[in-house]
Amino acid sequence: MSFVVMKFGGTSVANVERIRNVARHVKREVDAGNKVAVVVSAMAGTTNQLVAWVREASSLHDAREYDAVVATGEQVTAGLLAIVLQSMGIQARSWQGWQIPIITDDAHGVARIKDVPGDKIRARLEQGEVAVITGFQGIEPTRNRVTTLGRGGSDTSAVAVAVAVKADLCDIYTDVDGVYTTDPRIVPKARRLPKVSYEEMLEMASLGSKVLQTRSVELAMVHRMRVRVLSSFVAPDQLKPARPDTWNEIGTIICSEDEIVEQRVVSGIAYAKDEAKVTLLQIEDKPGVAARIFGPLAEASINVDMIVQNLSSDGKRTDMTFTVQESDLERTLEVLKTARKEIGYFDVKSSSDVAKVSVIGVGMRSHAGVAAQMFKALAEKGINILAITTSEIKISVLIDAAYAELAVRTLHALYELGKD
Amino acid sequence: MSFVVMKFGGTSVANVERIRNVARHVKREVDAGNKVAVVVSAMAGTTNQLVAWVREASSLHDAREYDAVVATGEQVTAGLLAIVLQSMGIQARSWQGWQIPIITDDAHGVARIKDVPGDKIRARLEQGEVAVITGFQGIEPTRNRVTTLGRGGSDTSAVAVAVAVKADLCDIYTDVDGVYTTDPRIVPKARRLPKVSYEEMLEMASLGSKVLQTRSVELAMVHRMRVRVLSSFVAPDQLKPARPDTWNEIGTIICSEDEIVEQRVVSGIAYAKDEAKVTLLQIEDKPGVAARIFGPLAEASINVDMIVQNLSSDGKRTDMTFTVQESDLERTLEVLKTARKEIGYFDVKSSSDVAKVSVIGVGMRSHAGVAAQMFKALAEKGINILAITTSEIKISVLIDAAYAELAVRTLHALYELGKD
Repeated sequence: MSFVVMKFGGTSVANVERIRNVARHVKREVDAGNKVAVVVSAMAGTTNQLVAWVREASSLHDAREYDAVVATGEQVTAGLLAIVLQSMGIQARSWQGWQIPIITDDAHGVARIKDVPGDKIRARLEQGEVAVITGFQGIEPTRNRVTTLGRGGSDTSAVAVAVAVKADLCDIYTDVDGVYTTDPRIVPKARRLPKVSYEEMLEMASLGSKVLQTRSVELAMVHRMRVRVLSSFVAPDQLKPARPDTWNEIGTIICSEDEIVEQRVVSGIAYAKDEAKVTLLQIEDKPGVAARIFGPLAEASINVDMIVQNLSSDGKRTDMTFTVQESDLERTLEVLKTARKEIGYFDVKSSSDVAKVSVIGVGMRSHAGVAAQMFKALAEKGINILAITTSEIKISVLIDAAYAELAVRTLHALYELGKD
Repeated sequence: MSFVVMKFGGTSVANVERIRNVARHVKREVDAGNKVAVVVSAMAGTTNQLVAWVREASSLHDAREYDAVVATGEQVTAGLLAIVLQSMGIQARSWQGWQIPIITDDAHGVARIKDVPGDKIRARLEQGEVAVITGFQGIEPTRNRVTTLGRGGSDTSAVAVAVAVKADLCDIYTDVDGVYTTDPRIVPKARRLPKVSYEEMLEMASLGSKVLQTRSVELAMVHRMRVRVLSSFVAPDQLKPARPDTWNEIGTIICSEDEIVEQRVVSGIAYAKDEAKVTLLQIEDKPGVAARIFGPLAEASINVDMIVQNLSSDGKRTDMTFTVQESDLERTLEVLKTARKEIGYFDVKSSSDVAKVSVIGVGMRSHAGVAAQMFKALAEKGINILAITTSEIKISVLIDAAYAELAVRTLHALYELGKD
């Protein structure tokens, strides 16, 4: 018997028939004696409809009200799944974020989970009741208002619940059957990875892989919660109930590095097209100027990713280029305009025709030359690198968006990721 | 300056454009210096969609999960209206049932409001913030679960909020411009009543008039809260802000009998087609048998309305006929089947081809002969009366559904309700 958290995303619960399929996955676990908490997203399309209504109501809207509206999608799914489970003879009840409570900070729309008291739920699981929990949402206790965690937040909800109820396993059911070396739509030879380390997954998630939300991986890493990614589109009776000893037979397990025996130098290629590049022309080349640029952006909760400062030719003026999320570009330009006097720049240029391509692998730590190989391969294809950032386990380059697919295919072949 | 509660039903908030119209109604009040709490229903169609999903999930469903799903409709509207109000420069926030909290009993799906602490909301109204409150829902505090009040429950929410915040006026905006002597679709000459007593409105509501939910009227009566019914489809700038001295210029005011100067004998004709008739054949004609029939039905929360027991011919066996809501008929027959042995009947017959037509008027108390006139008029049209119930201020007859409209027109003419 294991304590299992199962998370199902929007396409897995897109309609009542799909919810019935989810219930059969849950039943398989219950029948095997597992104690189950299920975390659900809104039915696919629902959140988009709700967001569209909010935008129609006002282009500038109170994030607290946005959250009150958008959080309803998960409440519907949770109630419906509880009903279907009951109709199959399974004891179940739905839980909304405020009922557990899933306590978050007050950053409405992008709230972070601070605490999830798990004893009450765990006690009910022990009694054989399935807890059906709304993903994506929580409650900010000071004002007692509903918060949401941002797109993909249900993954984080699932991991947080798994940690709270001290689950043995956390299964993330999605519309793909695991984590791949890269996007199979670009590279048909892309291969499913049986295991990925938290660190690598974290880079993949933050670098554009849509499989898991970055914060869910961070949370799993901090609490050493083993997470498995697998497909909800496999027939429920084709899967084995979750058991630690057979857990690695399908899907991809996200776990500690030391659990992965054969470590490759590079394990995956990620890419993101939702980047935008901003260049400030002729800023002063002296200490403090970077703070004057990035301080106001941080205050506006805009994440700046890659930063390149050109060498100054005269020691007085230089250019600064950085990237932000494309969706933040408009706000970024506004912030820069407001702070123009303090920053002191001549002009701003921006473009969203850029892509970030990254190679990731914990093996890089002990292997030199990965970057050099990468730059050479790209150069051979005539791909110009606009900016570079590196970490211990990844190298990212910013390139012209038109070359993104070519770059991914080139690098996937370079590191032989299609081979077993 | 007045404290005003404004309630808007589903058709008044059917889409974002209609919600914007509602916001303009609210703005008119705010601009006039009124302190406003708004109670909203789900966008028209939303609740039906949610209910359809629940039914698709399972024909027999946990009422607590039904409530969790269905209550989301009002949460969406409340959030959207708060956003639109803010975009018009009006301070506003949404409140869900559990946040206020609107405390109810645990009769999920048909919960009754037990308490609404109003001080917190009133204090915010005093500061000029508009409270946008979800109608139709509450929270059952023992299990901390969301409850709903049953169809039309938002009216009751509005009155309960008005009582809680000690509002001066409670305006129910709907798709009709007041309470009519009868349904204008059946009798084009039907006239809007400027004032109706609580007692009359209560009878009208429980007898099929869809204008206000019965319990909202009960609650208003108990707390002497004056309620006005008016149309949200009038252009917002065509209405005067709510002020006690000009409040009676449009719509219909529901108030104490003693506020109504010219009282008619009969003030309205109501009809209901959602009745079903059940006849138990050959039950024992002795004390206790009625309790054995109606006890199990009461336990199953089935409301029995009219009851007719035939005279026994032999002093041993007789037939019993009663009516229930058509939507309860199936369950009623099940309950009777289960209790067949205890009740001891020969057979059950049922039909939903019946209608209840009622004449209502507080003036009846001091006027004899209303019933006799009514029965004579119906007989002259060849309409057979299947059952009769009376109260101090109403007489209801059960007739063949095919004659419902004819009966309504006949009685409307009989009591000269079309005349000023």
